[in-house]
Amino acid sequence: MTFQTKNFSYLKQSFGDFMAAVTSGAQLYLRSVATTQPAKHATHLSKDFPSLAADFCLPEVLSTVSSNAHSSPLRISGPVTLWLHYDVLANVLCQIRGTKRLRLYPPSDVSRLAYPPGASSSNVDVFASRNDMSDAQYANLMRTHPHEAFLRPGDVLFIPPAWSHTAKPEEKLSVAVNCFWRNLGDEVYAQGRDVYGNRDIAAYEEGRKAVEKMAKGFEGVPKDLRGFYLERLVGELREKVEASGAEGVGEGNERDS
Amino acid sequence: MTFQTKNFSYLKQSFGDFMAAVTSGAQLYLRSVATTQPAKHATHLSKDFPSLAADFCLPEVLSTVSSNAHSSPLRISGPVTLWLHYDVLANVLCQIRGTKRLRLYPPSDVSRLAYPPGASSSNVDVFASRNDMSDAQYANLMRTHPHEAFLRPGDVLFIPPAWSHTAKPEEKLSVAVNCFWRNLGDEVYAQGRDVYGNRDIAAYEEGRKAVEKMAKGFEGVPKDLRGFYLERLVGELREKVEASGAEGVGEGNERDS
Repeated sequence: MTFQTKNFSYLKQSFGDFMAAVTSGAQLYLRSVATTQPAKHATHLSKDFPSLAADFCLPEVLSTVSSNAHSSPLRISGPVTLWLHYDVLANVLCQIRGTKRLRLYPPSDVSRLAYPPGASSSNVDVFASRNDMSDAQYANLMRTHPHEAFLRPGDVLFIPPAWSHTAKPEEKLSVAVNCFWRNLGDEVYAQGRDVYGNRDIAAYEEGRKAVEKMAKGFEGVPKDLRGFYLERLVGELREKVEASGAEGVGEGNERDS
Repeated sequence: MTFQTKNFSYLKQSFGDFMAAVTSGAQLYLRSVATTQPAKHATHLSKDFPSLAADFCLPEVLSTVSSNAHSSPLRISGPVTLWLHYDVLANVLCQIRGTKRLRLYPPSDVSRLAYPPGASSSNVDVFASRNDMSDAQYANLMRTHPHEAFLRPGDVLFIPPAWSHTAKPEEKLSVAVNCFWRNLGDEVYAQGRDVYGNRDIAAYEEGRKAVEKMAKGFEGVPKDLRGFYLERLVGELREKVEASGAEGVGEGNERDS
């Protein structure tokens, strides 16, 4: 599935019908939502599937996940690939049935992964063949630092905030529970609703408004002068990235490899 | 002279003493300022050198320079090179005595010319030999688009806003009058004092504050996440530069060559 071209549709189906179809090989993907007011509340396995609740518990070592819990969607999928995206909340993916191959990219790869401004879904199909990719996109991907994880039933994978990831099923059917939690101070997160755990942090939301305002400030300025000053502002913002000790793009982020 | 290391000093001298010294080869540079309250008012040749006023007049074709006049400093120099800098106001450099070689760079070269944030003086000595330059600075300079102008007495050179320039004298003594004027709408300029015609436009001053604020907003955010989001904001600001049709850095600004 790709989020950009929306080559899929949303479907309401009884759980029984869904399970029958997906176990017989249908290209379906279930990501549970809350039983009541799903646009407002996050889903919790124990609340939304009370009959399954007793069957799933996190190990003691992950008590921080439970005590800061945000949501725990159930994911059941047939032979479909979920598009590359990142989550803002930390999460653990707990594989229950089937196997799955995940590809993950560290936060420092972000500028090579074609995220539209403000989007948490990428426009890149990292599994596409060389011939189905533009030269520029291929060159970008060649400079990323992908990690691969192969999940078997019982495996738990930690997916840190802002790590881009995509999953390819290795068998017909995959069942997983995905537990999200807040691992950062409350002030870091944007205020208000975040049903899916992918709402960007407050500083980025504010930063995007500032970028808009900055660009607007140059309306009416002749284009050579506008270019001159915007170019400098880009450079000055980049210096802030580097001064903050944050990992920039470029060679030698070897500790991630 | 370089502005960065300030390898020169400011000196009060009578005009007669100055002229005697500079005509006998002293490394001196006079850039006139206003006779009264020089930190507040810009200099005008006709006001500050009334006895010379009748000797200097701009041709009719430059009437816009006179009607929007900001200042007209007198520049008298011995064998010294003025550092690379840009002016925010449009100006014409009118060569009176001696000859001068100017090197100019279009606004689109700005990111390769090592301007510190908020400064209008560059840290690069573009006349330095290859061996006195870092590899990075040399590589940057190789990708600029320098223009050269050779001024003889009677020549008038138009220096547009944000064109970086530096001058090398070709003879012992050079005398010039430099007429600055406002060629943009009043709303483009920063409000308040601008004695030298090099105060940055309002949108850049505001933009710099926004960059500071943006960076501050990420304090307390873990560095990988900070890098992830700041990197995206850099990319989004760069998209604004490109979308505005402004000349970016890069190959193919051939119309400037």
